[in-house]
Amino acid sequence: MNISEQSLKKHYDWQGKIEVVTRCPIDTREDLSLAYTPGVATPCLEIQKDVDKSYELTRRSNLVAVVTDGTAVLGLGDIGPEAGMPVMEGKCALFKAFADVDAFPLCIRSKDVDEIVRTVYLLSGSFGGINLEDISAPRCFEIERRLKEICDIPVFHDDQHGTAIVVAAALLNALRVVGKDIADVRVVINGAGAAGISIGRHLLNMGVKHLIMVDRFGAIYKGKPENNPAQEDMAAITNEECVTGDLAACLAGADVFVGVSAPGVVTPEMVSSMAKDAIVFPMANPTPEIMPDAALAAGARIVGTGRSDFPNQINNVLAFPGIFRGALDCRASCINEEMKVATSRALAALIPADELSEENIIPNALDKRVARAVADAVIEAAKQAGVARLRAEGK
Amino acid sequence: MNISEQSLKKHYDWQGKIEVVTRCPIDTREDLSLAYTPGVATPCLEIQKDVDKSYELTRRSNLVAVVTDGTAVLGLGDIGPEAGMPVMEGKCALFKAFADVDAFPLCIRSKDVDEIVRTVYLLSGSFGGINLEDISAPRCFEIERRLKEICDIPVFHDDQHGTAIVVAAALLNALRVVGKDIADVRVVINGAGAAGISIGRHLLNMGVKHLIMVDRFGAIYKGKPENNPAQEDMAAITNEECVTGDLAACLAGADVFVGVSAPGVVTPEMVSSMAKDAIVFPMANPTPEIMPDAALAAGARIVGTGRSDFPNQINNVLAFPGIFRGALDCRASCINEEMKVATSRALAALIPADELSEENIIPNALDKRVARAVADAVIEAAKQAGVARLRAEGK
Repeated sequence: MNISEQSLKKHYDWQGKIEVVTRCPIDTREDLSLAYTPGVATPCLEIQKDVDKSYELTRRSNLVAVVTDGTAVLGLGDIGPEAGMPVMEGKCALFKAFADVDAFPLCIRSKDVDEIVRTVYLLSGSFGGINLEDISAPRCFEIERRLKEICDIPVFHDDQHGTAIVVAAALLNALRVVGKDIADVRVVINGAGAAGISIGRHLLNMGVKHLIMVDRFGAIYKGKPENNPAQEDMAAITNEECVTGDLAACLAGADVFVGVSAPGVVTPEMVSSMAKDAIVFPMANPTPEIMPDAALAAGARIVGTGRSDFPNQINNVLAFPGIFRGALDCRASCINEEMKVATSRALAALIPADELSEENIIPNALDKRVARAVADAVIEAAKQAGVARLRAEGK
Repeated sequence: MNISEQSLKKHYDWQGKIEVVTRCPIDTREDLSLAYTPGVATPCLEIQKDVDKSYELTRRSNLVAVVTDGTAVLGLGDIGPEAGMPVMEGKCALFKAFADVDAFPLCIRSKDVDEIVRTVYLLSGSFGGINLEDISAPRCFEIERRLKEICDIPVFHDDQHGTAIVVAAALLNALRVVGKDIADVRVVINGAGAAGISIGRHLLNMGVKHLIMVDRFGAIYKGKPENNPAQEDMAAITNEECVTGDLAACLAGADVFVGVSAPGVVTPEMVSSMAKDAIVFPMANPTPEIMPDAALAAGARIVGTGRSDFPNQINNVLAFPGIFRGALDCRASCINEEMKVATSRALAALIPADELSEENIIPNALDKRVARAVADAVIEAAKQAGVARLRAEGK
């Protein structure tokens, strides 16, 4: 059986990848009267007096909703809320396995931005955080922005920020290996949807100064007729020379390529045209923009992909579990830019200088130290930014 | 420490009474590729082709949402969604402990009927059933009715139907003990809110012919100025002699009293005025309409209350876990009157004839045989009513 067939069979066996279990005994009359009526009235009244007590007297302090509308599930597109559920349950399983975060999937049967925002807001008192997942662009931008405005708990769209954070970590270490400064390198991102734009914004926050975003119409520049509003916003802060060419033209002389686009769109010739010690992150899944061996043969020095069967896997499971662990531990009111930058730096720092190499720029996705290290960095950044509501220490 | 103080301390210790855990291993690269990408695409696509596969490939087939707006929590009233959470988590813990149903609390930050209905509908693809909880009357009637119309999964307001089902079971056995026929007895229900009206409707479905509903304005009769719409509906099918007196007047000569009203509103004199072998269920919590010893001293033959420290506890934990277990097992499209009647009969039948007595008319709330017996009865009733979508057998 191939992996698809095996996975299907396992899904029939598992009958769900998550389960809701009890944390209190329900065996005796006394158990019932403590966990339920009449005893339960007291914690209810405590929360009524001070709603923050919901973090101490219910599961809220460890609970994240994984929310989707099923419109951009994996590379499968708009398959609907029920069909998106296996991915959401998988995400919840990763939250628990990597960071002991209780995560619960909510698949919303609507594509209307107002309705999705309202639904999540109405439920936000039941949760300690909101992880948006697999919502198509450009709706995902507005949904996240508006939820951040009205919710007093962290809201995080992992497809945008998770990948961006891990790409930046990989880039920091790759630059150390090749001995270049982040402020000097020329970076080209191919793909200007939700993921590409978020990577671009985060790399600018990390210190990149020379960035060109490219999509299927070529380089994105101010006033380009094909720009959508999010791309026009990016045009204002990137491509300072107003380059107008195609991907091949943009890559000539570039130091870094980041691909969140389509299989095979980067040729060996394009890689050969890049600067010396080129860093190439072709992350299209499952088939990259250029295969690692071809990129290396064409002169790239460091290659990272989304795949686990090549070195340097850029996997957002390195980021989201620890980010939410940290945000929950210090009861952060949001997940802000400072916390994302801190996560990238913490991830990069997990590879000691003497272990750093072309084939080892990012921790292994299964490394269980990662989430705690990320959480501690997130807590510290939240405290410094004044968004931590608890003086939580790393555990 | 009293029970309130103990419960509060326990709630701080538990840090939530439920937890979301994984059912699949997440330890190796292969685990990741089966539970998450790339393997997870296959179950997603299977569900896209046939949405019913969501019951086999995700946790949906065992998952119930416990939904509240926090407006009628216990006897505490409108304490808000966050403050209602300890009760909802307790309910979820009972679902799991008694029937292995995964239940998850959703507390909605709105009191608007349209908005609550829409929110639950939008999430209904993530769940196999909806348990409405602690929503104030008369909103709870409309919310349940509309959700039943638009959702293709069972929707059940436990505060209405759970108590009604268990009261009816207790009444069936009490009538056996005193040797009266359900079609002949005169029943008085004091309290004409959600619970009282639901008990009244269910007792009529069980075969009661002579029923008077009473509230603080006295007997409810057709055209009474104080009637709300739900009460006017009930007036049309009860109180056939158009009695207009107060509770004392209604109880004179009655065979059965059911109270879902307020502490102490029934006097010994009222009980003495009832027919021979009177059955008295004063269920106000925590203090009944009349204490059991006082009722017995005044001539009642059988007394049941909501309390665990007296015989004959009428506790809806006897009903809802098994009802949802059965509905999920046969994938019922609804929980209809036939299934509720079957539940009452199954509960009554759990007390063998030779064990039946004035102090033993209903199973113990902690009896773990109950949920399976109820589930089997619910499955059978669902099949006969043609609302079972799976030929599930009792397990």
